[in-house]
Amino acid sequence: MQNKKPKILENLERVGIANLRTIVMTNWKGRKYNFVPEIELTIDLDKKKRGAHMSRLIESITETIEEEIEIRHGSLEEVERDILKRLKEKHPYRRAQISMKTELVIPKKTPETGKRTMETYDVLVGISHNNGIYTKILRVEVLGNTVCPHAMKNSNGKTHIQRAKGILEIETDYDNEIELEDMIECVEKAFPSEIYTLLKTEDERHIIQKMFQNPKFVEDVTREILDNAKKKFKGCEILAKTISYESIHGHDVIAEGSCKS
Amino acid sequence: MQNKKPKILENLERVGIANLRTIVMTNWKGRKYNFVPEIELTIDLDKKKRGAHMSRLIESITETIEEEIEIRHGSLEEVERDILKRLKEKHPYRRAQISMKTELVIPKKTPETGKRTMETYDVLVGISHNNGIYTKILRVEVLGNTVCPHAMKNSNGKTHIQRAKGILEIETDYDNEIELEDMIECVEKAFPSEIYTLLKTEDERHIIQKMFQNPKFVEDVTREILDNAKKKFKGCEILAKTISYESIHGHDVIAEGSCKS
Amino acid sequence: MQNKKPKILENLERVGIANLRTIVMTNWKGRKYNFVPEIELTIDLDKKKRGAHMSRLIESITETIEEEIEIRHGSLEEVERDILKRLKEKHPYRRAQISMKTELVIPKKTPETGKRTMETYDVLVGISHNNGIYTKILRVEVLGNTVCPHAMKNSNGKTHIQRAKGILEIETDYDNEIELEDMIECVEKAFPSEIYTLLKTEDERHIIQKMFQNPKFVEDVTREILDNAKKKFKGCEILAKTISYESIHGHDVIAEGSCKS
Amino acid sequence: MQNKKPKILENLERVGIANLRTIVMTNWKGRKYNFVPEIELTIDLDKKKRGAHMSRLIESITETIEEEIEIRHGSLEEVERDILKRLKEKHPYRRAQISMKTELVIPKKTPETGKRTMETYDVLVGISHNNGIYTKILRVEVLGNTVCPHAMKNSNGKTHIQRAKGILEIETDYDNEIELEDMIECVEKAFPSEIYTLLKTEDERHIIQKMFQNPKFVEDVTREILDNAKKKFKGCEILAKTISYESIHGHDVIAEGSCKS
Repeated sequence: MQNKKPKILENLERVGIANLRTIVMTNWKGRKYNFVPEIELTIDLDKKKRGAHMSRLIESITETIEEEIEIRHGSLEEVERDILKRLKEKHPYRRAQISMKTELVIPKKTPETGKRTMETYDVLVGISHNNGIYTKILRVEVLGNTVCPHAMKNSNGKTHIQRAKGILEIETDYDNEIELEDMIECVEKAFPSEIYTLLKTEDERHIIQKMFQNPKFVEDVTREILDNAKKKFKGCEILAKTISYESIHGHDVIAEGSCKS
Repeated sequence: MQNKKPKILENLERVGIANLRTIVMTNWKGRKYNFVPEIELTIDLDKKKRGAHMSRLIESITETIEEEIEIRHGSLEEVERDILKRLKEKHPYRRAQISMKTELVIPKKTPETGKRTMETYDVLVGISHNNGIYTKILRVEVLGNTVCPHAMKNSNGKTHIQRAKGILEIETDYDNEIELEDMIECVEKAFPSEIYTLLKTEDERHIIQKMFQNPKFVEDVTREILDNAKKKFKGCEILAKTISYESIHGHDVIAEGSCKS
Repeated sequence: MQNKKPKILENLERVGIANLRTIVMTNWKGRKYNFVPEIELTIDLDKKKRGAHMSRLIESITETIEEEIEIRHGSLEEVERDILKRLKEKHPYRRAQISMKTELVIPKKTPETGKRTMETYDVLVGISHNNGIYTKILRVEVLGNTVCPHAMKNSNGKTHIQRAKGILEIETDYDNEIELEDMIECVEKAFPSEIYTLLKTEDERHIIQKMFQNPKFVEDVTREILDNAKKKFKGCEILAKTISYESIHGHDVIAEGSCKS
Repeated sequence: MQNKKPKILENLERVGIANLRTIVMTNWKGRKYNFVPEIELTIDLDKKKRGAHMSRLIESITETIEEEIEIRHGSLEEVERDILKRLKEKHPYRRAQISMKTELVIPKKTPETGKRTMETYDVLVGISHNNGIYTKILRVEVLGNTVCPHAMKNSNGKTHIQRAKGILEIETDYDNEIELEDMIECVEKAFPSEIYTLLKTEDERHIIQKMFQNPKFVEDVTREILDNAKKKFKGCEILAKTISYESIHGHDVIAEGSCKS
């Protein structure tokens, strides 16, 4: 029935499944990772076909990730490319896209007392397969802060400070090796100060001094993310966005920009 | 079929509908309000009845609020009591509960330049009807800030500041007249400074000075909400909660307390 | 300070405020509407300017919508265009964008018993001002259902049914008059059956018969939305998306397409 | 400063941290699990203390879970009890509570074709320490469906079907061993049919037949969850809730009940 000609002849750009959660394991440079990502997998659908065979999309995922005893994949990108390859054999498509939204946990040391702390980041890893060419999209969302330089000048060195979120998204060739950890660093360095799960009194003092020495608008943070990413990664489309959860307003302040490298 | 004896004999405490959105109009002391609340309406169900007649719950809502040309209700509480009264005639129950989650918009003046600004608050108004007695539950959620007094002492007057949310919930007799505006004021006064949608440079300076003169932990804010509410409202169960969206951490800090008045 | 040259010279595409909620009133063909939309307002920022003057963005909103005693605007588009015009006088920009996310409540009659019922829809109305030209973006999100034709054939007329959401987004010239109500109708007609807040037994039977006579994949719904919109509206970029909250899976099934008219 | 007497003397019930995400590893009966839960950890605060030492709460978490090379804990409950024990040494409290919200992924076989599929469930595991006594709270959220028996009777065997969510929450002694997998089974068996990520055509037919042979109201599902749990687990407070995402309405239908075992 899916192969029948539909009543209305319109090509559809993206047909598939969304919000599928399952376990995905990788072995990134010798370290094992377990993820429970939220997966979206879509293909284009020709106007002469009524529907996609959804269970084949699912099988491409389950057969790729769930039957492995040995972890065969080094990264989520590799898992995704294998899913799209397998799907190509099961179901014809011109374009296919897959993305996984998940969390990355990275160990750190606090800045003064050197205590061990774990930091958690929202990340997205996506692959697109179009006429035989694979491209990828990588996104990291990093929490930090903004410190208003304008208020600091007008209030004798006092100012308003707030939590902010920096988002860096990169689109590039599949083979352009880019580490999520490096992307996260590009965003963290752009804030007045990075943040930590654990902070002892001395660490907290360090962070506060850094914030006051380094006041930044939301626009400054976005430009520094762009600049950091441009210097670090080549051959990329780069998108940066910062959201500041204002402490003196109920609304948010945002700044968005893009560039190529 | 709903009246049949079910296979498993268990009383159910709350059976009904949730996330129903519709328009509700009130005339509060001469000023007309339009709300599009999210409504939850439930009744208890005896173990000998298989199901509730859901369409009668819906009709109690639609007949009460949708057919009026003249606005007959002064408050959301009144609308809700009329819905429960009408429901009692359509469907037997021992206990029934209704709540509406919506937004209240209040005009203000900015603190220095006296400019007009509108502030929006999330509110919940609920009524419970139990053995002939009506009680009500009122909740306001108010944005503000926390300013760390501990860091201020340890960092030469510098500190970390962040957006915070204060929640005040009151349970009391239906006839105990309590205005949401007064509840909002109890929360706003508990913050280091209230916040505003619009702030010109002079207003911003005013807010910042107030915040630095008035540093408060999340615990301080919660205690002041409790204290303000206890003094303002009598015969109430009072619950307060503050959530601080830390600017130096990715997690939140919370404080919750309760008292009677 | 906002006018100073920043350290990093990058144009920013969108700088401004988000998640601002306030009251907006319109008088649409003689009927008064009150909205509490969530507003986003952004401008582009030249690489030579460090920051936008955020309070001027806010003032453009507050002065336009909050000081009116008489309702001067017929639609949210008009309110938005006036905000962008006012902003142009306060703050230079090349491109500015504003959007309002809110809810539209429409009275209906149930299909068999003719009872009055109110239906609530999520809508977005946005305006973009670019080099003197205004364009608009309109979006409606409508709940309905999907009924699997493939399962129906394979299970002797039985099938799985589920809630679905249809989204129609239109981009067109500011002057191309398009009613949100007509857009909602384009989506509702595309489902196996429209849905209602209130349904008496006879109405429910009507809906169920309609669903079983009219089974549709998520792809069918998306194509019919596109087709309905293409026939109804001219000179538009049309985007349609359907999300089916599967009753036999924990994930969703989606179909997305676009066309011009 | 936290130890100082506050201005307002009110005991606070719950003071601490929320939305902290970090990695937690367990070794449950020989199988290793990696979680990235969202953690909430709170203590009560005496009216004579101004604040809690938040960094000690964080350290109790980080020292318990992040420094282990060998996985020492069999379950999330054990990890949590160790966190509360460690906290007791660092920070005085009368009552402390910790909860972790995370996902459990369980392999299954599809009902007809026997294909391997992975199912993902939202779970919460919490521990409370009160005057030396540990109790626990366990919650599972399971997707399934409802199939209206009333409509089926009135529409010649046709009916409306929709996705539903069943929630089972159990409070009991820390030492009462209860497996989340068994709780999930109690909910899945209560639906007209369980659901699967992967379904081939024969599996889908099986599910549909099961749904039509087994129509259930939301009230039926809740009662069966209660009954299944009461029979399976002893010495527990049991709470069940079902939410049906109606396919013929835009609102949800809910049923909630509780019992002891």
